[in-house]
Parts: sequence; structure tokens; C-alpha cells
Amino acid sequence: MNDLEIVFTLKALIATPDTATFEVLERNAHPADIAAALAQLSIADQVRLLQTASIELRAEIFGYLPEEQQLLVAEALPRSMLTTLFLQMAPDERADLYNRLPEERRETILPALAQAEREDIRRLAAYPETTVGAVMTSDYASLRAELTAAAALNELRRIAPDAETIYQAYVIDEHRHLIGTVSLRELILAAPNKLVGDFMRPDPITVHADAPREEAARLVADYDLLALPVVNDNNMLVGIVTYDDARDIEQLETDIDFHKVGAISDLGKTMKEASIWLLYRKRVFWLVLLVFGNLFSGAGIAYFEDTIAAYVALVFFLPLLIDSGGNAGSQSATLMVRALATGDVVMRDWAGMLLREIVVAGLLGATMALAVSGLGIWRGGEEIAIVVSLTMMIVVLFGSLVGMSLPFLLSKFKLDPAAASAPLITSIADIAGVLVYFALATALLDLPVPGV
Amino acid sequence: MNDLEIVFTLKALIATPDTATFEVLERNAHPADIAAALAQLSIADQVRLLQTASIELRAEIFGYLPEEQQLLVAEALPRSMLTTLFLQMAPDERADLYNRLPEERRETILPALAQAEREDIRRLAAYPETTVGAVMTSDYASLRAELTAAAALNELRRIAPDAETIYQAYVIDEHRHLIGTVSLRELILAAPNKLVGDFMRPDPITVHADAPREEAARLVADYDLLALPVVNDNNMLVGIVTYDDARDIEQLETDIDFHKVGAISDLGKTMKEASIWLLYRKRVFWLVLLVFGNLFSGAGIAYFEDTIAAYVALVFFLPLLIDSGGNAGSQSATLMVRALATGDVVMRDWAGMLLREIVVAGLLGATMALAVSGLGIWRGGEEIAIVVSLTMMIVVLFGSLVGMSLPFLLSKFKLDPAAASAPLITSIADIAGVLVYFALATALLDLPVPGV
Repeated sequence: MNDLEIVFTLKALIATPDTATFEVLERNAHPADIAAALAQLSIADQVRLLQTASIELRAEIFGYLPEEQQLLVAEALPRSMLTTLFLQMAPDERADLYNRLPEERRETILPALAQAEREDIRRLAAYPETTVGAVMTSDYASLRAELTAAAALNELRRIAPDAETIYQAYVIDEHRHLIGTVSLRELILAAPNKLVGDFMRPDPITVHADAPREEAARLVADYDLLALPVVNDNNMLVGIVTYDDARDIEQLETDIDFHKVGAISDLGKTMKEASIWLLYRKRVFWLVLLVFGNLFSGAGIAYFEDTIAAYVALVFFLPLLIDSGGNAGSQSATLMVRALATGDVVMRDWAGMLLREIVVAGLLGATMALAVSGLGIWRGGEEIAIVVSLTMMIVVLFGSLVGMSLPFLLSKFKLDPAAASAPLITSIADIAGVLVYFALATALLDLPVPGV
Repeated sequence: MNDLEIVFTLKALIATPDTATFEVLERNAHPADIAAALAQLSIADQVRLLQTASIELRAEIFGYLPEEQQLLVAEALPRSMLTTLFLQMAPDERADLYNRLPEERRETILPALAQAEREDIRRLAAYPETTVGAVMTSDYASLRAELTAAAALNELRRIAPDAETIYQAYVIDEHRHLIGTVSLRELILAAPNKLVGDFMRPDPITVHADAPREEAARLVADYDLLALPVVNDNNMLVGIVTYDDARDIEQLETDIDFHKVGAISDLGKTMKEASIWLLYRKRVFWLVLLVFGNLFSGAGIAYFEDTIAAYVALVFFLPLLIDSGGNAGSQSATLMVRALATGDVVMRDWAGMLLREIVVAGLLGATMALAVSGLGIWRGGEEIAIVVSLTMMIVVLFGSLVGMSLPFLLSKFKLDPAAASAPLITSIADIAGVLVYFALATALLDLPVPGV
């Protein structure tokens, strides 16, 4: 079924709720597509349709809904239905939803769940949002080392309906310490009577539940893992982060970096989901802050007012010069922020990177100086051409070095390198540009140096 | 073993090559970590060490080396060793390497390979770099619908050593048409004598080999797939894209977007790998191009030279005003480029987004106007304060609308929305800012309008 057919079927189902029609839909459409179509409808219609679906399909569709809509639907569902939905959801998604439900709604659900689920929800919901613990799932497959391959395979068959993945199983000792991993591929290839402990891979790569979530994403990517085991202080297995959860973390972190480089504070949600008020708040901070940066440029201009009055033609080149410094700086900062985020460049590369940047920026500055020298002669004569070219060379070099170094500096002080946004670099380059330009002009054009 | 121990062991191995020590390394370190340590050494040492490793480990380590290094090592390896390495590599990585080898090197390898491998390499290497065909692998597991679950499981056991994944198997008919998929989880849960055709999932999600590679990445992410089957014009199965390949594509596309927003042409490799000359070329184009944008601002300033001469104090506010418009525009463009790239926002959302942006930008403009009005009174008096505040309101609104609309427009004309870079938006906002500012000043301060 294509998207249009799904929407059409859903609309028909709103008019006449009919389990059989829903089963046709279930067989012919992916839950992700049904969720996408459903998300276009009103919350009341979404709730009505979900009530018609089978329990399993309901949980699957619900899992694919955007987080905002999950919350709205959860609040509108009858209590008994929300409870069964809760039981069907993956533990990590369930804990997420629980965290966002209003207090009174939480209290009506918890008593209806079994003790084990209650504790699981409470435990997962207790981890701060940006830690590995908050994104891991507790539905993993664990095995004992003493099992034979055949017995282990049977054990995996038994837990398959509940485990997030059975393709990686985790071997634990009697204290739940993680001692090894075994893949389903290895299990079905092993001789049936061989012991798991004899062919498991010891010393698996792990992550601590309190570690930042991006560390889990990085490990999954670096080692091409299907799932990464999560341990606590005592090296006890407490959960796993699957490859698709790792991918979601990466996307989220990339979004945050992207927005920071654009001088927007962390939105915490996608742009479409963000309200007008949220967008305003996340943008206004940087805009106003950068105004104060610009005051320095203004002060620089005010200081050189007599120079400008003597050569008004100088103003012609002002936007050109300060923008070029800012542009070169934005380029360097963008390259560096991204390289630091992906781990392509690390702290100890700083000296080497700086050296290379000086060469690249020098070449760029020389090219730009050459490009504007002709313009300088045409608009202001030879002397102004020299001032403009020299200034261009200096601001491009300065802007690039600031753009490259600031992300490193922020990183050094454990701040987010992505805070070295393009507008911030532009503001810094502006101030330098104004000062260098008018100081050079005052000196080279034999103008009186302004008093303080 | 930690990174330091691995490097230490490798250095010991350079001094005295010894297969036994390499086996200790193999048991205690992940190939990805060995590759990372190896990449720090000279190419000659890398080649020497790889020759000491077992064939399987050699191929695994080699697969984790950065692409640049793979090429250098491949060129330095003896021909016979390169051939065995080729046979061990995953088909997609092999075809990639083949494409980057110099012509004469390719010709020495091909004859040494079996007919099947030769054809496979030629076929995969023929797809353009940015298509699905170039990133897919031909090492997939395929099954016939007539098999029983038990027989299918045996078949998967047989092909496990060669297949990239056996967790998803693809059901094909006698003409290799893809008719369904079955997961290993479903296979081991099925009754042994049940036919694959009876429990496979029909109508799988597929992608065409000629489609852009980011489409494969998007499908894998949207449907949480382990692997995505790739078909040709006749719906014949030609390969699969695995989740880790999809993740690599996403990272690469994000890099490209990131750099474009920073006004850097597509580097095609990571920043660390890029040479000085490459970095220069990829940055200079935009820098010089943006100079010409700035000429319009300069021309605007020249046109209003008399206004500036009459009120030099106006120049004080110039950087502030044009930067604020540019900053607000960069914010909008960044939000929009990222939202379009992740599929969060699509073309048909344009009108709604524009409306919302007008409200947000209006609020931002009003806040900024208020912030600078006091400054205007202090520095230039009431009249200048009105000019500055009004200009601020207009440039923030204008910059935001351009920043939001340009990515949509580029997308509409099938261009990359990420080309709406922050510096480009800044240049456009600058021109508008200069014109609005001085035109308003000329009008409101009762100055003579300049002649053309």
C-alpha cells in the first residue's frame, strides 16, 4: 500500500471501525507508514483508530509516532488501554514516555503493572536524559557460560518474543557480571554440545550506564556493533544500546551541533515540533548577545570617526573586509566543529592543525588581497588599495585562526566546541577587522591618530 | 588491551616479526583498535605488520583502515598478497578500493581472481559513487520459498562464513526476483517443516540500485532495518545495504551538509585527510564569490556617501544592524537546512513554516529593536534611535525570511538546500541592511536624496 492508500483506509476506518479492515491494513503496510499516516489525523481520531488495532500492532504503531504525539495520545487513551500498551512497549521507550507523562497519569498506571515492570520503569526513568542509562533497553538476551550451544539456542528461542535482539546474547556469571558475548551466528555454527563459555568472545566492549549517551553511539559506530552492553559500577550487565538507538542518538547530537553552529541554543526537539515561543527563546539569546559583540565594532568605528570623515571612500570597503574575515573564520570553525564531533580530529592534533591552517589561511588571504587590490585602485587610488589589501590579508588570516582555535579551546575547557558558532566568529572577526582597517588607514594615509 | 598496549605490541612486532605474538594481539584486541594503532605507523611498517598477520585478521584490520591508508598500503603490498586480501574483503569495500587503485595495479590483480569475483568487482565498480549500487554488498543470504525452515537454516549455516549478514535472508524466485524476506529470528522460531514461502514477509521495502545512496540510508533508518534489499529495473535482487553502511552514508551526507552551511564546497573526505591544496580550493571559491556579494553593499554605501558624511555617527550602528540581519538569517537557514536534510520538514510545509517564521522573526525583530533603541538615543539622539530601531526590525524580519525561504527554493529547483550557507545569507542580509538603513536615514533625517 502506498501512503495515499493507507490514509484512505484509515479514513474509512474512522467512519466504520472494523477489525477485519485493520487486519488487511496490517498485512499490507509497514507500521512506520501507518504511524506516519496516522500522525496527520486529529488526536481523537488517532485514539479511536488505535483502539481498533490489535494489541501488538497498536504498540508497534505507537512506537513509530513522534514523541509529542505519543504523549498526547497516551493522555487521551482510556487507562486500561494505556496499561496494556505500556506492557507491550520496549522498556526504553516506555521509560521515556513515563518520564513525560503528567504526575497524576503516572500514578494511575503504575499500580496496574506487575512488580517487575514497575521496578524496571522506575529504574530506567531515574537515569538523567543525556546518559546511556536513559537510552538503553533492559530487554536483552543473557546466557550462562555452562550452557551447551543447543541449550543456549533453545533459551534464545524462549526469550525471542520479549528481547529487543537475540542476534547478540550476553554471557553472565551468577552475580550478573558480564563475562562475554556470543552471536546467534556463532551459536548456530557451533557444534550443538559445545559449551557457550568455550566459544564466547571474552572481554566485550562495554559502556557505563552513567556515561554520556554519545559515548555509546560512538562505540557502536567504531566497532560496527549490533548492540552494546551497558554495565554498572560492579561490571554487572544492566542493559543494551541497540544500533538503531545509537543511530537516533547520533542524529540528535548532530542536530544539536548543527543548531549551535547556527547560534541557536539546544532546541531539545525537532524544528517542526518546536513552538513559536520555544523558537523565539532559543534564538533571541544569541541574537541579543551578539549585539553586544557588535558594540565593540561600533566603538572602534566611533574612535576612528575623523579618519572616516577624511576618507568616506573607506566605508565602501568596510562590509567587504569584515565579512571576508568572518566568512573565512566560519569556514574554519565549521570544519573544526564537525571534525571534533566525529572524532576525526582530537585535542593532541591542535599544533599540527594550527600550522596547516596558517598555510591555508595565508594562501586564502593572499588570493583575496589580490582580488580586492584592483578594486581598491579603482575606487580609492593606490594608497587605499594598499590599505585594503593588507587589511584583507590580516583579517582572513586572523579570522581563520580564531575559527580554528576557538572550538579547540572550548573543548579543552570541557565546553561544547559547537558553541563556536559562525555568528560568534563573525562578530570577533568584525571587531578585529574594524580596528585593523582603520588603524592601518590612519597610519598609511598619514592621518592624525585619534586621541583617547 | 588498551590503545597504548596495542601500539607497544605493534612496535615490538616491527622489531621482531613473530606470528605467535600476533595471535596474542588478535585474541586480546579488537581489529578496529589494531587498525587505529596501525594507522599511526609508517606505510612501510603497516605493510610489514599486515604481512605477519593471519589472512583473516589482515583483511579485518585492513577494512578498518582509513580509505587513504588502504590505498597506500594496497599499492605497497606484494601482488600475491593484495590478491588474497582482495578475496577476503567485503565486496562493496573491495569494489571501492578497486575504483581508487591506479590502472596498472588493477590490471595486475584482475587476472589472478576467479571469474565470479572479477565480474562482481566490475559490476559493483561500475555504479557511480553516489548511488546505492556503489555502497551495496553482493554478499547477502538468499533463500528459495520452497525450502522448509530446517533446510533454510542449514542453507544459512552453509553461507554464513561469506555473507555480510545472515540475520536477514531474502527469498527469491527462479528468476532472482525478490518476493519476500525472512529473519533468522523467524526461522529459528518456525516449526522445522514449515515452508519459507508460508511465513516469509511479502512485499519487502526495497531500493533501486541507481537511486541516490542517501535514499537507502533514509529507508534503513525509517524502518529500523538491519539490511535493505537492492533491486534492479526488473525487481531482481542485486545486493543489500547493511545498517552500518547506511550509518556511514548518513555521516558522510551530514559532513557535506555541515560544510556547505559553512560555505565550503564538498571536500569528499574528512578534514584531517584533506591536503592543504584541497582545503584551499574548496574554500577559496565561496570566499571570492561572497566578495562580489559584498560589492553591492559597498555600492549601496557609496550611493549614500553624502548621508554618511552628514551623519558620521550612523556608521557606528552599521556593523550592528547588518550583522543582526545576517545572524537571524543564519539561524533560520540552519534550522531549515537541517530539518529538510532529516526529512523533518518537506516541501508542502512551506506555507505553514513561512507563517510561523513571520511571527517568530517579528518577535525577534521587536526585541532587538527595543534593545538598540536606548543605544540609539545615547549615541545619536531620538531621530537616529528611530531610524536604527526601524531598520533593526526590518533587517531581522527580512534576514529570517530569506534564511528560511532560500533552502526551500533551492530544494524546489532540485538543488542542495545546504548551499544556503550562513555566509551567503549574511551577504544578502548585508545588502538589504545597508539599503534599508541609509534610505530610512535619508528620509527620516530630512537629508537630500542622492542622485543616480
